[in-house]
Amino acid sequence: MPAALVVDVDDPADPRLDDFRDLNSVDRRPDLPSGKGLVIAEGVLVVQRMLASRFRPRALLGTDRRLTELGADLDGLAAPYYRASAEVMAEVVGFHLNRGVLASASRAPELTVSDVLDGVRTVAVLEGVNDHENLGSIFRNAAGLGVGAVIFGAGCADPLYRRAVRVSMGHALLVPFARAQSWPGDLNTLRDRGFRLVAMTPGAGAQRLADAFAGLAGDKVGILVGAEGPGLAEHTMRACDVRARIPMSRGTDSLNVATAAALAFYERDRLAP
Amino acid sequence: MPAALVVDVDDPADPRLDDFRDLNSVDRRPDLPSGKGLVIAEGVLVVQRMLASRFRPRALLGTDRRLTELGADLDGLAAPYYRASAEVMAEVVGFHLNRGVLASASRAPELTVSDVLDGVRTVAVLEGVNDHENLGSIFRNAAGLGVGAVIFGAGCADPLYRRAVRVSMGHALLVPFARAQSWPGDLNTLRDRGFRLVAMTPGAGAQRLADAFAGLAGDKVGILVGAEGPGLAEHTMRACDVRARIPMSRGTDSLNVATAAALAFYERDRLAP
Repeated sequence: MPAALVVDVDDPADPRLDDFRDLNSVDRRPDLPSGKGLVIAEGVLVVQRMLASRFRPRALLGTDRRLTELGADLDGLAAPYYRASAEVMAEVVGFHLNRGVLASASRAPELTVSDVLDGVRTVAVLEGVNDHENLGSIFRNAAGLGVGAVIFGAGCADPLYRRAVRVSMGHALLVPFARAQSWPGDLNTLRDRGFRLVAMTPGAGAQRLADAFAGLAGDKVGILVGAEGPGLAEHTMRACDVRARIPMSRGTDSLNVATAAALAFYERDRLAP
Repeated sequence: MPAALVVDVDDPADPRLDDFRDLNSVDRRPDLPSGKGLVIAEGVLVVQRMLASRFRPRALLGTDRRLTELGADLDGLAAPYYRASAEVMAEVVGFHLNRGVLASASRAPELTVSDVLDGVRTVAVLEGVNDHENLGSIFRNAAGLGVGAVIFGAGCADPLYRRAVRVSMGHALLVPFARAQSWPGDLNTLRDRGFRLVAMTPGAGAQRLADAFAGLAGDKVGILVGAEGPGLAEHTMRACDVRARIPMSRGTDSLNVATAAALAFYERDRLAP
């Protein structure tokens, strides 16, 4: 297979670099034409994960050193690698970027809830998780702790936002996700596919995490997590089979939502047959 | 007991507000006189935790609304509450602060490793954790998941830095911590006090987390966690009794250090007698 097309660029104003221009302002105004829909990967590891994902790269921008590090990962890549100095890169993106390489991709077609459930034993289901960093962390934790897909209920942020992709270490591009078309109605799709639904809640009536999952080792499971603070809506919890709580020390409030999710994923995985 | 002394302030240049001036630049230059040693709490919940901690407030700055919310928590407080508008507060601190209340405190005397072990069943021991956000998260997780104290080995950041205190939800002020005077030599202090030492590592020779802690339910335990990336130094791991790993999905790298710590704290607490 041919190696990637490497194109040297010296002029920060070169329009071929427009995918990477003024990234911070694009982040602030995703409604602008330049902010529409592009997915940005930062750093060698995340770029590698984009290359392995369903998101097809449009262009890469990076230093010569990162080109060497990526090496054979770029074989057969259809998109050009724009090779530039760190200074030119900084002028293009609008800040110093110590990760040294970026890739842009168009959004892939959205998957349906039914699509992402195929072959999956555990799925994370989020409601009201509107913080990009938490969302990214949840994808990273899902990938590491045996969760096969993520479903978004109402009120969730965009997992393809640049910060979410970065915090996820690129796993937001690899772990399949889908947005519920009807919420919480789409939970019925999970039930119909044989999933048992576990609602994470600090509520007193909930079972301890380990007890909640102990009876479900042989089942497919959806783990529902709500936003920090309000948690899951009551009508969402009523649609679940089991309520589970993390045993907490006295006098403390809840854990961060991504941490709580990690504990649930871990406990689920620990009890796998 | 008398209620707090409330002092209305209209002038952002009032020198009585100097503890709170230009917080972002103070953060960047903690070596400056104005950056020396002050601990800053932000928001009602964190201020409440400071009031309950060993850190004695010097001054509070906040809106009338936050004064009402704090209410009886301020009874008997020796420090003044400077009441100001949100606009005056923003001018003083240098940015808009939507938490609406701040408190400053001097640093309390440092505790020794031996001090913080009294009555503690589980202690977290950190090496090379130099990110303030991770450090804050670890304190929050420690507080929620039954860890009684934190010990800093080599290369850790300052847990009293503003961002660390904020991310910890104030638990950096409540969970006792100490810096090792000799590292990893001070691990002997833990051994002498009867603690068994568990090193967290992704290394292949380590036991699964649940197996590692299963044999230690009757013991006092120190849980050692290293920086993301390098992990614990080899000579630190050699000083430990057990190596424990979190079972991870194939093809993933490590978890965030605060998440890994949370899983260890959880597993330790789950197996408590």
